[in-house]
Amino acid sequence: MDSLRNPDPFSRSTADNPMVGWPSDLACLGVRSRLGVGENLFLRGRVPTHVFWVESGEVQLQRTSPHGHNVILQRVREGFVAEASLQATRYHCDAVAAEPSTVWSFPRGRVLKALRSSPDLALWWATRLAEQLRSARLRLERLSLKGACDRILHAIETEGSDGLLSLASTRREWAAELGLTPEALYRSLARLRRNGLVQICGDELKLLPNPTVPPNAGSLGETPRGACQL
Amino acid sequence: MDSLRNPDPFSRSTADNPMVGWPSDLACLGVRSRLGVGENLFLRGRVPTHVFWVESGEVQLQRTSPHGHNVILQRVREGFVAEASLQATRYHCDAVAAEPSTVWSFPRGRVLKALRSSPDLALWWATRLAEQLRSARLRLERLSLKGACDRILHAIETEGSDGLLSLASTRREWAAELGLTPEALYRSLARLRRNGLVQICGDELKLLPNPTVPPNAGSLGETPRGACQL
Repeated sequence: MDSLRNPDPFSRSTADNPMVGWPSDLACLGVRSRLGVGENLFLRGRVPTHVFWVESGEVQLQRTSPHGHNVILQRVREGFVAEASLQATRYHCDAVAAEPSTVWSFPRGRVLKALRSSPDLALWWATRLAEQLRSARLRLERLSLKGACDRILHAIETEGSDGLLSLASTRREWAAELGLTPEALYRSLARLRRNGLVQICGDELKLLPNPTVPPNAGSLGETPRGACQL
Repeated sequence: MDSLRNPDPFSRSTADNPMVGWPSDLACLGVRSRLGVGENLFLRGRVPTHVFWVESGEVQLQRTSPHGHNVILQRVREGFVAEASLQATRYHCDAVAAEPSTVWSFPRGRVLKALRSSPDLALWWATRLAEQLRSARLRLERLSLKGACDRILHAIETEGSDGLLSLASTRREWAAELGLTPEALYRSLARLRRNGLVQICGDELKLLPNPTVPPNAGSLGETPRGACQL
């Protein structure tokens, strides 16, 4: 793991630095590093030394079971890693970079000391966890929907603003997040467009008002006037 | 919403009361109530007055979109509701009981005051959120697996202890949690048993060592000696 030259989260612009907005008491503790594919962030059973924030790439939490299966507990592309280890005595799994990744490390003891010395900081920390919890629960509800079209509509309704969602990831990445193959995503987007439910302009998906056909109907509708092609 | 006679979370036994273990500064603020089907816990747009903990039943967080869809954001059978509204200015959705439910209400202002006056309490709160976040992420990873058998094995590996999982819910409820139909769950359990991967005794599922066939193989194997029937 190579530490980068500049460990100060506040010296970079928002686009470069997702830590902007973090309280300075916490942000000043973070060190930004790069991990190569296959590098470990920590190993199961070791005493926790840090909590982490993944800025980019993908870190996987894994556990090899006593029965020899390799179980992926979590894939983190942006967010906390080992935040639950803040008060644990051991890491409960391995963390490994599945892609070249950029990760912020925060020394656990100093984070705990900072949180214990300031209730406002501890509440800020709790609020970040609550946000991530809300996001994870939204995704859970979405994955429990059977139809691909229903998952897409749910994502636009819940992640978008006033029925308009700008995709931040590639279609392939978005398909994986929705638990779909890229082909199923393309087919379903085309169906939603044909049925006049969703307008697609580049990376923007817009819900259209008063749909007259159910989202999963297979019949071909007319392309609404003004709608972009997929 | 009818308040029950006894609002003290610590006057009941563990079996009756999942709040045992909560710090007394927080637990003493809770009032236990019952909701009938269709009763609202809160409505979107209102100023938050309480955070909640669902003890039993099912509370759904819902939002009616500007386009007329009813979107379920979250189903809570045991856990926090509106924990993210602790510092919000408005509830961002409706909360309604989908089943007869038992819910603890905590006045938001008094919870915030208690958390702000004690970093240890705020850290305890953050730890509960981190636990729920870890659980939600485990379930997300499980639902992203394509095969029903893989989801079952993942649940035993991650929710069980040393490869042994005791089911706390009915098979029908467990199927819903796994994103499966009850029929698919039964078929997959039977296949895992036939292939010698899992032993099933009543509500206990046990991983067997050294499996020789992949979990999704359709071929009929011999029932291992000593294994219970489904």
